[in-house]
Formats: sequence, C-alpha cells, structure tokens
Amino acid sequence: MNSFIYDIPTKVYFGKNQLENLVSELKTYKKVLLVYGGGSIKKSGLYDRVIKFINNAGLEVFELFGVEPNPEIGTVRRGVKIAKEKGVDVILAVGGGSVIDCAKWIAGGAKVEFDAWEFYSKNAPVLSALPIISILTLSATGSEMDSCGVVTNPETKEKVGKLAQPLYPKVSFLDPTLTYTVDRYQTACGSADILSHVIETYFSKDDDLFMLDTVMEGIMKTVVKYAPIALENPCDYEARANLMWASSWAINGFILGGKVKAWSCHPLEHQLTAYYGITHGLGLAILTPRWMKYCLSDKTVDKFVSFGVNVFDIDKSLSEMEIANKAIEMLSNFLYKTLGLSDTFEKVGIGSENISAMALGASKGRFIDGFVPLYKEDIETIYKMCL
Amino acid sequence: MNSFIYDIPTKVYFGKNQLENLVSELKTYKKVLLVYGGGSIKKSGLYDRVIKFINNAGLEVFELFGVEPNPEIGTVRRGVKIAKEKGVDVILAVGGGSVIDCAKWIAGGAKVEFDAWEFYSKNAPVLSALPIISILTLSATGSEMDSCGVVTNPETKEKVGKLAQPLYPKVSFLDPTLTYTVDRYQTACGSADILSHVIETYFSKDDDLFMLDTVMEGIMKTVVKYAPIALENPCDYEARANLMWASSWAINGFILGGKVKAWSCHPLEHQLTAYYGITHGLGLAILTPRWMKYCLSDKTVDKFVSFGVNVFDIDKSLSEMEIANKAIEMLSNFLYKTLGLSDTFEKVGIGSENISAMALGASKGRFIDGFVPLYKEDIETIYKMCL
Repeated sequence: MNSFIYDIPTKVYFGKNQLENLVSELKTYKKVLLVYGGGSIKKSGLYDRVIKFINNAGLEVFELFGVEPNPEIGTVRRGVKIAKEKGVDVILAVGGGSVIDCAKWIAGGAKVEFDAWEFYSKNAPVLSALPIISILTLSATGSEMDSCGVVTNPETKEKVGKLAQPLYPKVSFLDPTLTYTVDRYQTACGSADILSHVIETYFSKDDDLFMLDTVMEGIMKTVVKYAPIALENPCDYEARANLMWASSWAINGFILGGKVKAWSCHPLEHQLTAYYGITHGLGLAILTPRWMKYCLSDKTVDKFVSFGVNVFDIDKSLSEMEIANKAIEMLSNFLYKTLGLSDTFEKVGIGSENISAMALGASKGRFIDGFVPLYKEDIETIYKMCL
Repeated sequence: MNSFIYDIPTKVYFGKNQLENLVSELKTYKKVLLVYGGGSIKKSGLYDRVIKFINNAGLEVFELFGVEPNPEIGTVRRGVKIAKEKGVDVILAVGGGSVIDCAKWIAGGAKVEFDAWEFYSKNAPVLSALPIISILTLSATGSEMDSCGVVTNPETKEKVGKLAQPLYPKVSFLDPTLTYTVDRYQTACGSADILSHVIETYFSKDDDLFMLDTVMEGIMKTVVKYAPIALENPCDYEARANLMWASSWAINGFILGGKVKAWSCHPLEHQLTAYYGITHGLGLAILTPRWMKYCLSDKTVDKFVSFGVNVFDIDKSLSEMEIANKAIEMLSNFLYKTLGLSDTFEKVGIGSENISAMALGASKGRFIDGFVPLYKEDIETIYKMCL
C-alpha cells in the first residue's frame, strides 16, 4: 500500500440558490476574466445572473468566449493574452469541464513568460496560477474539484493533461439545477465519463485501501442508479445532485489513495478525440468494455468479481469467470442500452485508417503501465475490437 | 435535500515514513507548543523523533503534557497561558482525539482575551485560531480532520463540543504504524466511536444524498471488516490504515452533505463521561443498539433495512422488520462479542442513581431533534434499557 498526500483545497458551494455567494467570493478581487463556451449560458439566463453578481461585487470584467468542447491551445493563448494585458486577478469559468480546463491553462499561463504549451512540450512546472472560481453546468470531468486541465493541440494532434496543485479551483459552485438543460446525449456521455474515472482507479495493480474501494463502488452505483433517472426526467433534482457530487469525487484525488499506476482507457480515448473530435465520454464508453474483455484473465478476475458483485449486484454463488463476464455484459448494457450510447467505432465514423498511428500515440512509444500492461500491439487489438 | 458548503482545508500526510515531512511543515514557524497526553509517546520513542524534527526545523519548543483522556478545561487554560506568555505561533498535537481536541481549544483560546470556557458558556465565536498540526496515534474521534473540539468541565459536569472553521488542523500526519501499540480495549473503543459517527449521520430524518449513503455504508463495512483484524494482529498495516482513514472521513463533514438534524447517541454518551468518566467509544457501544431498538418503528424501518442489507449483508428477501431486528442484533454481536466491549451499564459501574439528571443534561431541558425526537422521558427509557 502506497503512502500519499491528501490536499484538496477547493471550497464547494453545493445546492440550489448557492450562486448568490459568488458576490462575497469575488469581492476581494478587482478584475475578472469570465471564461465560457458557446451561447448556452446566454440562452439559459445564467450569463446575465453571473454578470449581475460580478457587478454587485464591483469587479471589472473581461470575457473569453467560444471555448471549444475540447479546448484548444490557441484559445488558451487568447485567454492568457487578455489576462496579462488587462492585469486580471481572478478567473471565473462558467461551463463544463472543457471551460474549466481551459481556465486552468490560462491561470497557469498568465503567471509565466513562456508560451503555455510548454507546460506540456517542455514539461515546464506550474508553480503558481491565478485563482480560479468555477460554476459548473455539466457533471462529467470533475475538473471543478481537481488539479488537472486537458487541452488539445490540433496541429500536433495531441490531447494532453497537466496536473499541478495550483490548478485546483479555489471555489466551485455546484448547483444541480444548472444541469437541468443538459441534453440526453451529453448527460449520457458525462455519466460514462464519471464511471470511467472510477473504473480507471478501481482497476489497478496497486494495492487497494479497502475503504476507498467501497467508496468507488458507491460512486459507480450512484451513476448506475441516477443516470437513467436524469435521462428520463432532466429536472429531477435528486438525480442531478447525485451525478454532480459523484463527478467531483470520482477524480478529485480522494479515491486514488496513493495509487500510482497509469490509467488505461483515457490515453486510448484521447487519441480518438485528437483524430476524430468525438465526445470524450462517448469514446470512453466504446472503449471500456473492450478493454475489460482484453484484460480479463485468471490473474485479474478478482477485481472483476468485486466490481460485479458490489456494483451490479451479481449473484455471488456464480463462478468467478461467470461473474466477471456478466459484469462486463451489464456494464455494456448500461452504456449502450440504458444510456443509449453508440457501441462501435463504425457508428461514430471511426475507421481503421488511423489505428496504428493512434496506438503509437496512446503508448507514446512506450507501454501503458496500468492494470494490465499495454504495448502498442495490445492497444491496436483493443481498437480493432471496437470497430 | 439541503444545500451545503464543503470546505475541509486539512492537508494529510498518510502512510508510514511520512513524519519526516514535519520538518518542512514546521519551518515557517518560530515557536511551537507541543501538546501530548501521558507518557506513551515517550515509551514508544515517538516523542524523541518529534523533538528531533522540531529541532531540525529550528523552532523553540514549549510543552503541555498530561492531557487527560477527556481533556479538561483547566488543561486548556494551562495551554492558553503558555501560548500567550511565550508567543507560540503553532500548536503540535501528538496523540489521539483528546489531545487534538485540547489543542483546538488552546488554539482558539490563545487568540482571545476572555476565558476559553466562554466559547461554550457564552457561545463566543471562534473567529481565529493558532495553526494546528496533528500527529495521530489513535483512530477514533476524527479530530485530526474536523473542526470540532470537545472538552469537559468537571465542576459543572459538562462535556461540550465547539465547532468552528478555524479549528480544522492545518496539517495532519496519519501514520498507521503509530497505532500498532494501541491496546485491544482502546482499538475496540475507537472502532465503536468511528462506527457511531457514521451511524449518527446515516440515521437521519434529513433527506439523503444517495451517493453519501453509499460512502457511509462503505466506511461502516470497513470498520466491521478491519477492527477484528487489528484486534487479532495489532501490527497489521492494512487493517490499521483502513481504520485510520475511516476515522477521518466518518466525521470530517463530507458524509454530512447538508444534513442538519441533531445527533442522538453522542449527547446521551457525553453524560456518561461527565458523570462516570468512562471511555467515549465504550459508552457509545452500550447506548447505540438500545437507541436503535427504541427508534425502530414502521416509520423508520426503511433506514434499518438499508443498513442491514448494505453493511451486514442481510438477506433481502426477509421482511423489513426481520431485517431491521437482525441488523441491530448483528451490530450488538459486533460490538459486544467481536470487539469484546461491555454490554451493560452495570458492567462499567453505572447505576440508576443519576439517570434522571443525565437525561435532563442530555436534553438540556429541550428535546433532541434527531432521527427520532427524544424528550427527557425517552432518554431515561434508553438509559434504563442499558442497565
């Protein structure tokens, strides 16, 4: 069992009618960069509410809008430029994970003289960042309470993450009612994303802290229970609230408990986004059950048994392999039937043309040292299983 | 479902060999007040290690030793006096919950001109406190990661808690190997305490956030699984680690998720400690199953069913009342047989002489507005069930 440091500084206002506390949280600052995506927050009225609170707090406001679903480094650069030129002292990200991720790169980029892409290309450390306040509108990536930001470089076809302690949002507002307008497809993709974050940590070669395994099983059960309710009734507060809090705790570092082994499905998925621009959660949904099938063996079956029994309530009296296979089948049914997500590459327009290049990209020339070690050839096989 | 603010600022170093980080954590300070209990940390060698780290960090050290198992306000006053006279700028608490609780009252008391008892007697707010660093040696109260300190006033026979955001330890060191020397009895009492913290939150009239219910069930399963292992083999790292992390998360505020209803067993137990000085976890162990029996009805049975099925794996096909009664029976067996704790007041030297006064004290002249409302008469009945 590995040692670890637990240090999650984000303060969270959770629940409806919490947004008015934005005024007191902003008051200590002078100039805010408001970061958001397309027009959805204008349509929903959220933009007007936020502007009103910023005005009440007495801040000068600058805007970066049009953040892409997979935020691009060019957008980050635009934000950094504004932040530096205007002397911004706080960033307010209003949106889903993409907007918050973009805000994180801007927050770090505003504090250095070099180009923000060097946080990745030269592995430059993020030693400080502008304070980030987030208002979450989509339960999925967990960016509202973690220290990671993912951006894409369309020129190099790279989608990369940067982790650093200064990137934790200082304050996040989690109001489940702000996700009422999230459509069926995005709700499904977000739920698949949450589930995947837990699965990546749960299925690990590192020793487990049993207590955290039980927490992970709980979060997975929560998604399995409430995602269908949110699909059925988008304004079900209980469902939206459970998905929202699950999204944060699936990836904020708590469940990790010192595990250091690499994730498996995420690097495979990042290639799909980089090459085809598909939604992250959808890519994960197609890949995960195939990856599981590929990894299942006498050596790994134990973890699948715990997963099947504790998350999907599968009959313990079955044989281990029966439980494991049934667990993968039930996960597939959940993703493809209950959530209604596409189950093959073909259905989302991915052919075999880039499989070799993507496998190389996912392995970065090395192997993925995860639950089961994956070399380029293994990754190719998993991609082919998805065709 | 209530809204809530999540704000737990404590940084935790978890695992063996983490203690050396004490040097870097202390370095920014000048004068430390080292707070500890009896001589156990001297016997175990921990005292010498800590002094070495303090010296390496270059701090001047002052000591408050002899903190009682239920820390008394007089001890707090001694600590406040040292802190003020010497200009202490950080408090280092080495011990279990009592030592950390005492350190919290000192940390708050050092910042005000009035007597620390007025935090309770006049409900004076704790607006600031000296930073607290804790090194935990007993998994039980969760004080290492919460904002509450409990002290006893022997003159007024009051045992009272104070909650305030500035009382969260800044840093806590959780090294499971430091609990290897905790004896059988204290390990059992500590485990009962952890379990009780979760039960108090789990059994609530407030609406549940299902996700947090699953987390609570997980923590309870963790205690039920690992307490017997720690009793059997005190140096089992996995067992001690699981109990330690469970103790923090059972009460740091996370599982609360906006529930505001009062706890029930704790106020009843605090009277036992105030009148008879018994160990907190033992008092809780005697009380909890009786309180459950008293509360069980057609109106409350649902929660007992979830508890029985998800924590004790009771057969779902039984009737609700059968499951509920079996759950209480299994909890009793765990506390009294597996952990070996005494199961009646008589066995711990408590007679009927103070029941009426204790019931009055527990209800503070009002009723306890918890899972089931408890008036003075209800509390008397529960006490009598324990005789």
